Amino acid sequence: MDPDAVAKAFVEHYYSTFDTNRGGLANLYQDGSMLTFEGQPFQGAQNIAAKLASLPFQQCQHAITTVDCQPSGPAGGMLVFVSGNLQLAGEQHALKFSQGDLGGELTHVIALF
Amino acid sequence: MDPDAVAKAFVEHYYSTFDTNRGGLANLYQDGSMLTFEGQPFQGAQNIAAKLASLPFQQCQHAITTVDCQPSGPAGGMLVFVSGNLQLAGEQHALKFSQGDLGGELTHVIALF
Repeated sequence: MDPDAVAKAFVEHYYSTFDTNRGGLANLYQDGSMLTFEGQPFQGAQNIAAKLASLPFQQCQHAITTVDCQPSGPAGGMLVFVSGNLQLAGEQHALKFSQGDLGGELTHVIALF
Repeated sequence: MDPDAVAKAFVEHYYSTFDTNRGGLANLYQDGSMLTFEGQPFQGAQNIAAKLASLPFQQCQHAITTVDCQPSGPAGGMLVFVSGNLQLAGEQHALKFSQGDLGGELTHVIALF
C-alpha cells in the first residue's frame, strides 16, 4: 500500500477522533509515545490522553491543509508533517497549527500559531 | 550532553548557515537525507542543496520561535520540530515557517505559511 495513502488515512482518523471523541485518542498511543504540546512534554498513552482531554476548549474542528510524509528508519516508520487550521467553538478566527509525527511510536510535537 | 542543547545548537547552526552561506548546507546532508519542501520531495545532499540554492530569494533571515525535540529510535536519533519567522529582503511581512527534522539522517519537511 502507498505510504502516502497510509499516512493520510491515519491523519484523517487522528483528527476526526480528536474532534468528535477526544478520549478515543488514548487508543492511538503506546507507552513509548511522547507528546510535546506547546513546549510541554508528556509520555505514555495515559499522560498524553489526559493532557489532550484537559485542553481549555471542548469543541474544535481541525481542517488539514498539508500532509507530507517520508519513510524513516529501518523498521518501516514514517515522519509525517501536518499543517492546517484549528477552529474553536465561539472563536471568530481559526488558529494555525502544525504537527510533526513519527509514525510507529506516534511520537509528536504540536505547535499552535 | 543534554539532547535539548545539542538540538538547539544544531538548529542555530543550520539556520545561520542558511542565512549567510546557503551553499554550505550541502555539508549537513547525507545521501540518505530527504527534504520535502512545500510538498515537493528531494533526496540526497546534492539534490537538496540544489533546491535550497534555487529558492526565489537571495537574502533571508530566519528568527526561531520554538525548538522542541524528542529522542527517537534505538540509534540515538532525535525528532526536532522548529517554528519561526522567515524575513525576506525587501518584503514588509515575515513568513511563518515550521520544520520537522529527524536528526541523524537530517530528513525533514519545511512548510511556509
